[in-house]
Amino acid sequence: MSLTPPDPQIRAAAATRLGALATPPGALGLLGEVAIWLASAQGVNPPEPIVNPRLVIFAGDHGVAAHGVSAFPPAITGLMVRTFLAGRAGVSALARAHGVSVRVVDLAVDDDYADLPAEVRGPLVAHKVRHGSGAIHLEDALSGAEVRAALTAGAVIAREELAAGADLLMSGDMGIGNTTPATALVAAALRVPADQVTGRGTGIDDATWAHKAALIDQALSRAGDRLDDPEETLAAVGSADLAAATGFLVTAAEEGVPVLLDGLLSVACALTAERMAPGASAWFVAGHRSTEPAQTLALDKLGLRPLLDLEMRLGEGSGAVTALPLLQSSVALLREVALLSEVTGAGD
Amino acid sequence: MSLTPPDPQIRAAAATRLGALATPPGALGLLGEVAIWLASAQGVNPPEPIVNPRLVIFAGDHGVAAHGVSAFPPAITGLMVRTFLAGRAGVSALARAHGVSVRVVDLAVDDDYADLPAEVRGPLVAHKVRHGSGAIHLEDALSGAEVRAALTAGAVIAREELAAGADLLMSGDMGIGNTTPATALVAAALRVPADQVTGRGTGIDDATWAHKAALIDQALSRAGDRLDDPEETLAAVGSADLAAATGFLVTAAEEGVPVLLDGLLSVACALTAERMAPGASAWFVAGHRSTEPAQTLALDKLGLRPLLDLEMRLGEGSGAVTALPLLQSSVALLREVALLSEVTGAGD
Repeated sequence: MSLTPPDPQIRAAAATRLGALATPPGALGLLGEVAIWLASAQGVNPPEPIVNPRLVIFAGDHGVAAHGVSAFPPAITGLMVRTFLAGRAGVSALARAHGVSVRVVDLAVDDDYADLPAEVRGPLVAHKVRHGSGAIHLEDALSGAEVRAALTAGAVIAREELAAGADLLMSGDMGIGNTTPATALVAAALRVPADQVTGRGTGIDDATWAHKAALIDQALSRAGDRLDDPEETLAAVGSADLAAATGFLVTAAEEGVPVLLDGLLSVACALTAERMAPGASAWFVAGHRSTEPAQTLALDKLGLRPLLDLEMRLGEGSGAVTALPLLQSSVALLREVALLSEVTGAGD
Repeated sequence: MSLTPPDPQIRAAAATRLGALATPPGALGLLGEVAIWLASAQGVNPPEPIVNPRLVIFAGDHGVAAHGVSAFPPAITGLMVRTFLAGRAGVSALARAHGVSVRVVDLAVDDDYADLPAEVRGPLVAHKVRHGSGAIHLEDALSGAEVRAALTAGAVIAREELAAGADLLMSGDMGIGNTTPATALVAAALRVPADQVTGRGTGIDDATWAHKAALIDQALSRAGDRLDDPEETLAAVGSADLAAATGFLVTAAEEGVPVLLDGLLSVACALTAERMAPGASAWFVAGHRSTEPAQTLALDKLGLRPLLDLEMRLGEGSGAVTALPLLQSSVALLREVALLSEVTGAGD
């Protein structure tokens, strides 16, 4: 059974309002389409301004990072978690500029944060599933119980963000090596070989790229028929952070809140969420096109067209936060522009 | 002699800072490039936040509008000027959402605004050059004296906006039929026939498109060798609003203030500004790709890559205002993100 979609009657009413604005038909381009979608997702025409957009960054390490798939060493994951907490990461700067609340949650970082005070460490690790997900070409990323724990953590976190007043949710990810399991999730869902979906991550050379693709193929081959099932896919070739983000997105869709997707990590989880809860993706809009080929293929499969194409590949939810003002623009247009009937009436 | 470019030393320093951020090399994509450009244009590394962005909408009617080139009647121009004044146009909504000051200036609207109070009408028409520019396939758009008056008006307006504290300038345009002279300006600069550059404007059918292209070719042919000179080009196939916007952009570049370009109208004037004052375009960044082919060709000629591609074709400066938050994002990133040396040092 499919999830309840955004309100079709509100969608129709918003489309009618868009057509009645004192602008040439179609002149607002994608902003018009986004405005209609937001109205239907909010259930209000015209849509309300987005006043409490909230980003959750799911952090975790990946066993594959010890096997030469990334330009950076695994220890960077914990350093970047601290950088988010200090508000000094890329997404921190973007979030301040655009009024976004940022929360970082450790699902499987290989770090115990002995240097952090308990009141910071406590919430950070409250949903921790394990230290580092398994190296997917050699072993499962997670046990079945760990997948369920991570999915539940994501669901709980989504509900907490909604309870805090979120009117838009975004998911980001941090973890050295994370594009490897994310690419595997996309390859598994689309049934394509790794060399069609593998990208350069944070910036790897040709030899490392070939090694990464081979490793992903090895993981897919190891998983075999288990890839027919999305939860088994998360266990075999995913990770705790990706499973939690998937649970977060499923719950956001179930709860009927609009979601602004980020790059490969977010979109791989959106694709997996759609597999687990058909219809979920109707609640998602794509923020940006990353440089990762798997992201573009997954967006195509979901029928989502990204708003930005700036060759960003920072992760962290940065593409979603960068795209947020476009949603705010779309709301302003559908709410505030005069109707053609008002303008022509004004000349009487 | 070329205009003074944005500061090359600041550019180099900003590029060095970008490379030293705690982000993977190149991960910020175009936002990184924009941040470097803004720093060099401001002469400050890292760049300062944009706190007083100002848009000027140049309004005018066009004789060609009476000759079947637009989906809308000429009387819409005056109605839209009133809609800007009332803050109810598309760009008004966007400008409120993103903190942009909007000023509309009538250069050649075929309207005397008898219904408007003197204190509104006065500033609106203070720079008026004439009622409607000439139908360019049959006659010159402007006399030589009118071109000079419009260029001067644009220069004066740019200086007024700078005196009001502008730290970023944008130009927009309003006038039924305006894509016809703008396309002619681009065709003249690039020496290409009209059918390679003519677009659909606010939305015209195939027959109207062919008529519009033929009319532009007729105008170009009528102008002949005068197209070798940018001022003569404005006189022969331009318009008062386009000449004023060109003067505005030349002066912005001379005064060394960063400019965020809009769609076809703004970019056609930027191309003309570059012809009049070589080096001017180093002060410009492209906000969005419109649906008009002439805009893309002009951007290519100027070496500018647009930040957005949302299939917008509203005009009014709307694409520039929609892109503004991307500039603010780029500033936030280069100012606020930790340096790699700080992050790795934090683990000691």
